[in-house]
Amino acid sequence: MRTDGREPDQLRPLNMERGAMKFAEGSCLIQLGDTHVLVTATVEDRVAPWLKGSGGGWVTAEYSMLPRSGRQRNQRDGTRGPNGRSQEIQRLIGRSLRSSVDLEALGERTITLDCDALLADGGTRCASITAAYVALHDALTWMNGKRMLKKWPLREAVAAVSVGIVGGRTVLDLNYEEDSRAHTDMNVVMTDSGRFVEIQGTAEHEPFSAEELGQMLSLGKKGVSELLAAQRKVLGIQ
Amino acid sequence: MRTDGREPDQLRPLNMERGAMKFAEGSCLIQLGDTHVLVTATVEDRVAPWLKGSGGGWVTAEYSMLPRSGRQRNQRDGTRGPNGRSQEIQRLIGRSLRSSVDLEALGERTITLDCDALLADGGTRCASITAAYVALHDALTWMNGKRMLKKWPLREAVAAVSVGIVGGRTVLDLNYEEDSRAHTDMNVVMTDSGRFVEIQGTAEHEPFSAEELGQMLSLGKKGVSELLAAQRKVLGIQ
Amino acid sequence: MRTDGREPDQLRPLNMERGAMKFAEGSCLIQLGDTHVLVTATVEDRVAPWLKGSGGGWVTAEYSMLPRSGRQRNQRDGTRGPNGRSQEIQRLIGRSLRSSVDLEALGERTITLDCDALLADGGTRCASITAAYVALHDALTWMNGKRMLKKWPLREAVAAVSVGIVGGRTVLDLNYEEDSRAHTDMNVVMTDSGRFVEIQGTAEHEPFSAEELGQMLSLGKKGVSELLAAQRKVLGIQ
Amino acid sequence: MRTDGREPDQLRPLNMERGAMKFAEGSCLIQLGDTHVLVTATVEDRVAPWLKGSGGGWVTAEYSMLPRSGRQRNQRDGTRGPNGRSQEIQRLIGRSLRSSVDLEALGERTITLDCDALLADGGTRCASITAAYVALHDALTWMNGKRMLKKWPLREAVAAVSVGIVGGRTVLDLNYEEDSRAHTDMNVVMTDSGRFVEIQGTAEHEPFSAEELGQMLSLGKKGVSELLAAQRKVLGIQ
Amino acid sequence: MRTDGREPDQLRPLNMERGAMKFAEGSCLIQLGDTHVLVTATVEDRVAPWLKGSGGGWVTAEYSMLPRSGRQRNQRDGTRGPNGRSQEIQRLIGRSLRSSVDLEALGERTITLDCDALLADGGTRCASITAAYVALHDALTWMNGKRMLKKWPLREAVAAVSVGIVGGRTVLDLNYEEDSRAHTDMNVVMTDSGRFVEIQGTAEHEPFSAEELGQMLSLGKKGVSELLAAQRKVLGIQ
Amino acid sequence: MRTDGREPDQLRPLNMERGAMKFAEGSCLIQLGDTHVLVTATVEDRVAPWLKGSGGGWVTAEYSMLPRSGRQRNQRDGTRGPNGRSQEIQRLIGRSLRSSVDLEALGERTITLDCDALLADGGTRCASITAAYVALHDALTWMNGKRMLKKWPLREAVAAVSVGIVGGRTVLDLNYEEDSRAHTDMNVVMTDSGRFVEIQGTAEHEPFSAEELGQMLSLGKKGVSELLAAQRKVLGIQ
Repeated sequence: MRTDGREPDQLRPLNMERGAMKFAEGSCLIQLGDTHVLVTATVEDRVAPWLKGSGGGWVTAEYSMLPRSGRQRNQRDGTRGPNGRSQEIQRLIGRSLRSSVDLEALGERTITLDCDALLADGGTRCASITAAYVALHDALTWMNGKRMLKKWPLREAVAAVSVGIVGGRTVLDLNYEEDSRAHTDMNVVMTDSGRFVEIQGTAEHEPFSAEELGQMLSLGKKGVSELLAAQRKVLGIQ
Repeated sequence: MRTDGREPDQLRPLNMERGAMKFAEGSCLIQLGDTHVLVTATVEDRVAPWLKGSGGGWVTAEYSMLPRSGRQRNQRDGTRGPNGRSQEIQRLIGRSLRSSVDLEALGERTITLDCDALLADGGTRCASITAAYVALHDALTWMNGKRMLKKWPLREAVAAVSVGIVGGRTVLDLNYEEDSRAHTDMNVVMTDSGRFVEIQGTAEHEPFSAEELGQMLSLGKKGVSELLAAQRKVLGIQ
Repeated sequence: MRTDGREPDQLRPLNMERGAMKFAEGSCLIQLGDTHVLVTATVEDRVAPWLKGSGGGWVTAEYSMLPRSGRQRNQRDGTRGPNGRSQEIQRLIGRSLRSSVDLEALGERTITLDCDALLADGGTRCASITAAYVALHDALTWMNGKRMLKKWPLREAVAAVSVGIVGGRTVLDLNYEEDSRAHTDMNVVMTDSGRFVEIQGTAEHEPFSAEELGQMLSLGKKGVSELLAAQRKVLGIQ
Repeated sequence: MRTDGREPDQLRPLNMERGAMKFAEGSCLIQLGDTHVLVTATVEDRVAPWLKGSGGGWVTAEYSMLPRSGRQRNQRDGTRGPNGRSQEIQRLIGRSLRSSVDLEALGERTITLDCDALLADGGTRCASITAAYVALHDALTWMNGKRMLKKWPLREAVAAVSVGIVGGRTVLDLNYEEDSRAHTDMNVVMTDSGRFVEIQGTAEHEPFSAEELGQMLSLGKKGVSELLAAQRKVLGIQ
Repeated sequence: MRTDGREPDQLRPLNMERGAMKFAEGSCLIQLGDTHVLVTATVEDRVAPWLKGSGGGWVTAEYSMLPRSGRQRNQRDGTRGPNGRSQEIQRLIGRSLRSSVDLEALGERTITLDCDALLADGGTRCASITAAYVALHDALTWMNGKRMLKKWPLREAVAAVSVGIVGGRTVLDLNYEEDSRAHTDMNVVMTDSGRFVEIQGTAEHEPFSAEELGQMLSLGKKGVSELLAAQRKVLGIQ
Repeated sequence: MRTDGREPDQLRPLNMERGAMKFAEGSCLIQLGDTHVLVTATVEDRVAPWLKGSGGGWVTAEYSMLPRSGRQRNQRDGTRGPNGRSQEIQRLIGRSLRSSVDLEALGERTITLDCDALLADGGTRCASITAAYVALHDALTWMNGKRMLKKWPLREAVAAVSVGIVGGRTVLDLNYEEDSRAHTDMNVVMTDSGRFVEIQGTAEHEPFSAEELGQMLSLGKKGVSELLAAQRKVLGIQ
């Protein structure tokens, strides 16, 4: 049994609140156990210089943790130069969401997905991706209402979950304590069609075998299906 | 009548949620109309170099707004150098709270008050001070439980409110739209004993008279009393 | 009696030298006891992007202290990131002077008031404001001579002084030693018509009462009148 | 056939020059087609504060590209703030090498692997890892000669290669032109024992299927074996 | 004749005010025509880490120009990253003064020479060196009075002047207008004994010949003798 | 005899490899003993704002050392703010090369000379200038082939060498060990016609006399002639 009583293939209690931020074009507060991330989607009529005149748009992400989101206080990003981890995460979030969007259909506009972890108990990057899809969906609906879209740009839903090997066992959706003890840690970003957008597996102490990789991938697939179902429910799709 | 239907001397709907952040020693989420600020208090066993060996501690604050807390998205603090406004605000918050604390009683420890505006509709600095008092109170209670305090260090409760002259009328607790139109804008930080900790009055377009100053100060006093009462209620004091 | 022999309501010896910097459109070196600030006004044919096309201009300020202006050497601004205190001060100076200027009349031009403290013995921000008015006046006269102004933009003269409570007594124009011991410290920025542009009162150790506030405000009013008279004299008005 | 005439499962021409940098404790210049990376290993008698007193050491990496290593000139890292891509790469290199080292055996010492891409035609991060293993091996041999090691700290050899799906075909060791056209791009870091240290697969345009993942992993395994053999040869092992 | 009426071998009108800054251990305001530089010398009981335990000290310099010291306003140093010219100048000033000081005799102390150009009409770096010698002399005298010195550390006086080729003629002490038109510009730093501490000659448009070099060096020697005499006079040495 | 067996007037073994970097418009790897510098010349169709509309171009340089180019590892430029030494060197390289180029003939284009020291054993700035001339020559030939030049812009060849006084003797082309012991260190930048572009002589411990200056200049002239001959040979000029 896991320290918080879950089965190896069980997600933490999940809640998503759509429209959590009054002023944003789209927003979603995701709570996955003690990991809470607030995601807003902002639509702006500007693109980076290299896109000007292309007719297409862009989707980008920024990620940050509140200083006291975790067990210890961390320094704010930016006060002492760059934070490599935050940059790596926001690049992953941006890539993952862009894979589902027809950027051409946006026109010359930028959608920024701000992911701010209010409470951090492991898995904030995956939770950010899952909630960012909901916020993005609402922002696109808002754009559609204002006739800003050439066509509906979303191809597939996308969600993400972490899996890992903890104490010799493959488990789903690691919390902070499990993450610290994990021998291998993998983030799996998948779509509705069961295909992969991104796989990032890292051996923390000891390399992992092809067999272990297979187990982690199936567990990831199971977790992502549940998250995709939750997204559909909060978005009122079927 | 004000655009949101309030009387000139009426606060916006107020809610404070104590202990909003699971891992912090103290925390408070304040909602004052559409201004929502999350404050955490972190206790650390360290002091700045100039305090080492003094036996006393320090209370400091950091302030930031989420990029999409307002009607437009703002760039994150720190990505393009310093943000003068944020620094000015966090210096005000730190000074205001320190005025109520016997720093000697903390021992060589630092309490950091992180004030993060989730939603910003005017008055975030005053809301930060009011909520910071609650978070600080809980952090000190936590320290007391761990026998870290030489004696109880809080002298008085402190709260803050904005007042201003909008359209020729003196009003309490300005929202964003009123703040943009105000001829004069004043922040009043006061204590339980009815004394002032900080007064910052700024004429935006036209200087203000001694009489107008008097009206703003009485309105501020009324607003602060109501906020102090709300603090007592959420802290369960009488 | 005060440590430097002054009466409670007495300013330090004051001297203002107009035109102190050969190349600037306006300049003033103010000496108020051992506080010496050099202010230059620079006129430039440019405005920030958000003012382009508006037809109006802007007045802004920058403030810095020479590293060895005080009793100890301080690090230069900028070599180790931002200096919050300098930013707060230059925002105050800019706001105070803008309150007296019809920005519309400037056309699309920016006037920068550089305030550099050569010697610092308390009260540099107030001395900066008082001298900046003189430098600004001369820069506007220069613009007028070049027919750059739509109309004369100065509405009222503006000057500033500090007041405070030191050793239980309300005193005018605190020097560094008094400032360090003050229980309350207040900066008062006023105009010719006896109205307030900015009030910033801060309790350093103990809150201040409404009565003490009243005493500080009258002392501030007296000090500002004397400074306004000195400005008129150096500018050769009447 | 590929644009440079290679078979789908063929590496680019490979050369490794051991000891390329006279002053470093270990160094290796790797040339993989037109991708040339110079790696040095520096041994220093210091550890980060959080390791002091632990008795163990650390292996870290820094990565940079010369401004004109590629077809266009890029700005140097650091002249306009942080470069997210470089930070992400150096974190990957550091993690990959640490997975093979018993850090305890180093004593309180830090080994820094500087990876500087002189010429960049795709695959610089994988080439960096492969060469860094050689430079690290030599630095450890140097430490061993100076009796600095508690025991031999290398557990397994580690090497890395990129694989991807280009024009519908799974290919090994993508050059820049292929990388730009790839639908999916994956970096595979593996050890002597055929296990994985890190897998990073990214769909650039379209998600990839489980079957495609399997093909990429076998191709990656073939490429890594050849790189491991080349490392053994240049190190004179068997 | 030169535009300001000087002979080719004539310095601009020179004035040095010793002790210009009340709080510093040594200070000198130099006025050389319209070039005015304020130099302070600060003595501190600290040395950089690499000098700790050596028993010796250090002399360093910082250089900055007030934003409106010249005909146009320049951005302040530090607000947009580093300023290469200022760094190059302060390195020159530091080296020049260190060449005259027995650093061993200072004990583990640092003397910082802050050179701030108030008005800039060409030749600020040379004027800084000449005035820094006076400020340093007074700071050393102050240290001597406090018995901080192992022995008197000054070996020789040092002063500096610019020479150049303007309109085909070799001239001494170029002002800004001449500096802009000069074909070659040279800074000469010399001592009492007629030897060189630093020579920096730069051809701006066309290389200069050995003969022209000889002419510039003799003119520089003449100028430096006059500056050394002025230093002796202001310091009251014979 | 010198520690490496050279005569006082002898250069270190010299090799220049033209076209060392595949993608750059011009490049040269210079090896002067254990000082190895890689220089690339990049041609770009852009100029700084102050040159727009002028019809002319610019030549600029950037200089950096690999972290482990020397006996100790140095921190990378930029990770902790500016590096004064690198900026000073790149300004020297840029000025030296510009003196030989008719900037008007380039049209509105910028040529950037990136000088990266791979191995550093003294004299990297002089080696950079000598190799930069070769890289620049090739970049201009490339531009000529593309009919980008109004006329051939190179007026004279330029090369540089260090000279110094070590152990009482004047020597040519100091290595790191000699540089550390030198009483005086001078960089001499000269052209084909035997004229000077830049002279920078610095007394490290003791001032140098006019006679010593004369000796250094003749030795510098001899060294530069040999370097100019080597440039002609590698460029295939006669």
